[in-house]
Amino acid sequence: MQDQASEQTRANAAGAGENAGDNAGKIAGKIADKDIEQLAINTIRTLSIDAVQAANSGHPGTPMALAPVAYTLWQRFLDFDPSDPIWPNRDRFVLSVGHASMLLYSLLYLTGVKAVNGKYERLGEPAVSLDDIKRFRQLDSKCPGHPEYRLTSGVETTTGPLGQGVANSVGMAAAQRWLAARYNRPDHRIFDYKVYALCGDGDMMEGISSEAASIAGHLRLSNLCWIYDSNTITIEGHTELAFDEDVGTRFEGYGWRVLKVTDANDVDALTRAFTEFRTAADAGDGGDARPTLIIVNSLIGYGAPHKQNTAAAHGEALGEDEVRLAKRAYGWPEDAKFLVPDGVLQHFADGVGARGRAAREQWQSAFEAYRAAHPDLAKELDQMQRRELPEGWDADIPTFDADAKGLATRESSGKVLNAIAQRLPWLLGGAADLAPSTKTRLTFDGAGDFAAKDRSGRNFHFGIREHAMGAIVNGLALSKLRAYGATFLVFSDYMRTPIRLAAVMEIPSIFVFTHDSIGVGEDGPTHQPVEHLASLRAIPGLMVMRPGDANEVVEAWRVALSQPHLPTCLVLSRQPMPTLDRSRYGSAEGVRRGAYVLADCEGEPDVILMATGSELSLAVGAFETLKSEGVRARVVSMPSWDLFERQDATYRESVLPSSVIGRVAIEQAASLGWDRYTGIQGACIAMHTFGSSAPLKDLASHFGFTAEKVADAAREQAARTRAARGG
Amino acid sequence: MQDQASEQTRANAAGAGENAGDNAGKIAGKIADKDIEQLAINTIRTLSIDAVQAANSGHPGTPMALAPVAYTLWQRFLDFDPSDPIWPNRDRFVLSVGHASMLLYSLLYLTGVKAVNGKYERLGEPAVSLDDIKRFRQLDSKCPGHPEYRLTSGVETTTGPLGQGVANSVGMAAAQRWLAARYNRPDHRIFDYKVYALCGDGDMMEGISSEAASIAGHLRLSNLCWIYDSNTITIEGHTELAFDEDVGTRFEGYGWRVLKVTDANDVDALTRAFTEFRTAADAGDGGDARPTLIIVNSLIGYGAPHKQNTAAAHGEALGEDEVRLAKRAYGWPEDAKFLVPDGVLQHFADGVGARGRAAREQWQSAFEAYRAAHPDLAKELDQMQRRELPEGWDADIPTFDADAKGLATRESSGKVLNAIAQRLPWLLGGAADLAPSTKTRLTFDGAGDFAAKDRSGRNFHFGIREHAMGAIVNGLALSKLRAYGATFLVFSDYMRTPIRLAAVMEIPSIFVFTHDSIGVGEDGPTHQPVEHLASLRAIPGLMVMRPGDANEVVEAWRVALSQPHLPTCLVLSRQPMPTLDRSRYGSAEGVRRGAYVLADCEGEPDVILMATGSELSLAVGAFETLKSEGVRARVVSMPSWDLFERQDATYRESVLPSSVIGRVAIEQAASLGWDRYTGIQGACIAMHTFGSSAPLKDLASHFGFTAEKVADAAREQAARTRAARGG
Repeated sequence: MQDQASEQTRANAAGAGENAGDNAGKIAGKIADKDIEQLAINTIRTLSIDAVQAANSGHPGTPMALAPVAYTLWQRFLDFDPSDPIWPNRDRFVLSVGHASMLLYSLLYLTGVKAVNGKYERLGEPAVSLDDIKRFRQLDSKCPGHPEYRLTSGVETTTGPLGQGVANSVGMAAAQRWLAARYNRPDHRIFDYKVYALCGDGDMMEGISSEAASIAGHLRLSNLCWIYDSNTITIEGHTELAFDEDVGTRFEGYGWRVLKVTDANDVDALTRAFTEFRTAADAGDGGDARPTLIIVNSLIGYGAPHKQNTAAAHGEALGEDEVRLAKRAYGWPEDAKFLVPDGVLQHFADGVGARGRAAREQWQSAFEAYRAAHPDLAKELDQMQRRELPEGWDADIPTFDADAKGLATRESSGKVLNAIAQRLPWLLGGAADLAPSTKTRLTFDGAGDFAAKDRSGRNFHFGIREHAMGAIVNGLALSKLRAYGATFLVFSDYMRTPIRLAAVMEIPSIFVFTHDSIGVGEDGPTHQPVEHLASLRAIPGLMVMRPGDANEVVEAWRVALSQPHLPTCLVLSRQPMPTLDRSRYGSAEGVRRGAYVLADCEGEPDVILMATGSELSLAVGAFETLKSEGVRARVVSMPSWDLFERQDATYRESVLPSSVIGRVAIEQAASLGWDRYTGIQGACIAMHTFGSSAPLKDLASHFGFTAEKVADAAREQAARTRAARGG
Repeated sequence: MQDQASEQTRANAAGAGENAGDNAGKIAGKIADKDIEQLAINTIRTLSIDAVQAANSGHPGTPMALAPVAYTLWQRFLDFDPSDPIWPNRDRFVLSVGHASMLLYSLLYLTGVKAVNGKYERLGEPAVSLDDIKRFRQLDSKCPGHPEYRLTSGVETTTGPLGQGVANSVGMAAAQRWLAARYNRPDHRIFDYKVYALCGDGDMMEGISSEAASIAGHLRLSNLCWIYDSNTITIEGHTELAFDEDVGTRFEGYGWRVLKVTDANDVDALTRAFTEFRTAADAGDGGDARPTLIIVNSLIGYGAPHKQNTAAAHGEALGEDEVRLAKRAYGWPEDAKFLVPDGVLQHFADGVGARGRAAREQWQSAFEAYRAAHPDLAKELDQMQRRELPEGWDADIPTFDADAKGLATRESSGKVLNAIAQRLPWLLGGAADLAPSTKTRLTFDGAGDFAAKDRSGRNFHFGIREHAMGAIVNGLALSKLRAYGATFLVFSDYMRTPIRLAAVMEIPSIFVFTHDSIGVGEDGPTHQPVEHLASLRAIPGLMVMRPGDANEVVEAWRVALSQPHLPTCLVLSRQPMPTLDRSRYGSAEGVRRGAYVLADCEGEPDVILMATGSELSLAVGAFETLKSEGVRARVVSMPSWDLFERQDATYRESVLPSSVIGRVAIEQAASLGWDRYTGIQGACIAMHTFGSSAPLKDLASHFGFTAEKVADAAREQAARTRAARGG
């Protein structure tokens, strides 16, 4: 195969050498269809090779191997308009093998994708210029090492950590089915897009892909196609070192359709496979609906004579000599760098460009007709696409009356969520088999379950698959839905990477984590989070909120939903806590600023008590005791540190005056980070070990979370302040 | 089935009611074999039911369903001696369904397992007493909510977070194969144990089990048997809500032998399946060696008429009425609580007890003969079992000469690891497909690869399966081997739970995390850790070490290996850093105390610079500049916060005198936690966002990690100290 392909290309690229380094190469005479195809494929390959070589860093082998696969998909199948890369009904292409980023950047450049993101790009300019490619992996290039959503238009999701992209794609495919069920009408087929994900051995080995594939099979998402590049090479060497399972059989077990293409260079065979997928996808949900896996056998570093089919082709530049030899094998001018032969740009413009534009224009006409027929639904879609909320979305949110017994924040959260969801139709989600415990089930009439047999339901059953849940929620959020996923806080450890990636991508995924402390009680240390609050707070650009009573829960949900570009973790209790009397204490609206004065003394306080969540009422209890003793104390509720840090210095100083050095923090979690607010000499009543299995009341006493301990610490700290004042 | 079983039991339990609440129940007349079996099984069931009911918390359904499975395995197959539950060649039983802990506690009590762990138990006493069972899930009971290794003898690993136990079992099975390859001799079969893991739908859904099953299949671990309880019920309801894959087909894809038992109450069918497994396991590594999956269909909550086969049987007490009805169904006296009928204890003593003791005694004789023939190998095994290190284990560790260019700490780590491994034969491990990058490959003669065809190799190829790697390393460590697993620091997120569980279990797993900062460079934000140091430091009982040059790496490995009961994360750089001149600066032995004075001024300093890892040399550079300007500065190297926190107050004060309030911390990571050492007004040069894709030198400048910035901050902080002193 290789020799044959090389021969073809060599003939066509003849004479292109003189244009080395230019944006176009001249090709003598008329170009046959077959030949321009090969030229286009080799342009993807050589741009990738040259970019990696210029950066002296990157992964050339996979773009070299998969250029024909990506070419076939984009040029012949993908309904994608480069001039409007966020058109809602576009087909999605997910590069789960994010290290092969040059494959995608080459396509974004060659198809002329336009920038549409005003924050990081200049609108209307090329999303990726040839100069960006020449500056691959350099500061401020649109071509970073791994594709980054929001930074570069045309990138559907940030990938790199293996397995994430394929799991995102399941969320995207589910989103299509849900959007179609809610918004399509017999005469208006508004959503019928398909989702493709390109993945490799690494994706297949990661557990998250197993979770995602299992749920995709369960949901019979026939609009989903994974293309698995089986190149048998990983960083440590041949896959026989660690991976010899029968992936096809495994996926049949998940209920997938499995197709095979034995040669990645066989464009015709690829075309047949994609056609088979598309036909099945267009058949919709009935009959034998199932996702499709296309297993493609490829040679990593295809064309590089010394590195092809070895781990050396994976993660480093080929080296100048090998670059020349690879180009020779492609029939490419050996001295040409970043060469785009004449006709290649036009070829893509005539293919994916023309087909995509036509499809998008046809869709827009259809959508205008839809808008006329269904103005309310069209308005919803407009708002959704702009990440706006509908008017009155928060009109039914309850307020909670003061109540000494109170309720668990998971309980109040469930009520608030249900109140919002009835007015925000595209708010949906579910739990990793813990909906009854996390109180995240939407219970109102018509909420329903999202399932193979009913695509309009809004309750997702993710199964005991936290990691995939996180990535699927991200896939839903990338599809402009407002999505949440829930589990116990301790199991946030199973889904750290999706949480992190939501922050990297600046998408408003919502993660609901209940059972947030030793309040878990009898389940013991394996189920009692300790380090999790600190480890979530450490993630940049993630909003972590641990509300301290039902009315703080109200505000926390309000803040979370009002953020179009920030992911949120809502950290909630299993056990009840008092609903504070807001006529007596500060308004819960303070949550909007992250931290606020909840209770205060007359004059300047001698000690500040800081707490979150279930410990807030402990602080209030101590405050009342101290007050009765004449100790001047203040209680600051701090549900969200990061939100507080975003407030101006004046506000922060007003809440935590630096003159008040006596500080006590109370939280049933690791103390890491609290020193920022307590100071080195302040007190922190926190967890210093793992928890234990026992009823909460015994644990609270065992680990020192009592109003007496808090008051004791506060008295000591108040004395510090007074001593420092010389008082 | 149910009625038939009930009839049998009712006959046998007759008259036992009068002993309600006692440790023994009288049964009239002689008991037939079949009858005592059923009585024993129902004792497991009713102890579990009663314990959960007394606690009003727990999971009765699975013990009720699986009592016959656990009974059959323990009584007829498991080579386990209750009087010596840590005998090295015992068969391992892993309860991956940790929530079904009462199943295990019932067995530990009924078989009379003795306590052997001096730290948390009284030696020689029952590991679990009936009183412990009565105090299930109460403070200080030996029966916490989920089984805890080290707390309760006979518990082979801490389980609860789903999927962890099955993945641990792969490490245990690999350990057996490795131990056999190294220590068995033609005439001395010292290690031939088998590993059983009991798992459920949750385990199967979790991605980690997919990773672990794939590698177990790859390694052809025919000594491994997973028993999959397919009860079709999860917390949200029937598995058809989220899980309808064909697990058997999936496991065939992984290369497993799949057996089915259609009724969990069919002891004969279970016996046939276990026999088939054991025969295959005893056949060893040749031929068609593969792990075995036994799929058992069960009814959750078997016997409880209203809750059987519903989610209600999963995670809460049955309620008094349903308890009575279940006991009636078993033919059990309805008023009896914690009833152990006469004959049941003896039955277990005659079964697993007698067989286990005989096997252990036979083994001990064999081992004495082995000791005579191979004293050196026997000594190794003695040391290994006691978690001791062999004499001279550190004799070949290099010291590194001062060198301004230096080398990456991953490089020096690779050299140190290889030097130690040659003298510590049971030190082994590998990477998640990143051995060449993490420098964790053992390269000396004879190190070899651990593989299906060679069980003596010490390099494990875990594949791109970080999560399973973590749990397998724990399984190896639980088998008393010294084991390590390596990947990039950013991917520690994929394996948080195993890291946490190593700390919960107090086992000395070693996790090597390289590429520890924006020093990753061009791979960009998806591969650059930011929050990971903080999030690991937040885990109680985990030693996190980020050494600052090659000689600190030496000490870090020394400390890690010297800890018999603490897991360690070694956090290492991708990029080179200077090897400091230790004749000029403090000795690297200071690492053993977590933090130490590396460079100091004359007299009391005005400012303390604190750094770890690659930023240490930045601090030293700034120190030299400041010195030349006459600014009195000190540099404190802080490779391990937690080790430092374990030092006495005098030492800590000597390193960080509280009078020196001018502090600067420098670390290419989230600042969370540094305030503990800088104070609120101190400076922290750290990462406040995610990184970016570019060469490191550009990133260092972009994110402000330059000697100038450090010196500027230090001058300001020195002024603060002087001002506070009134100087």
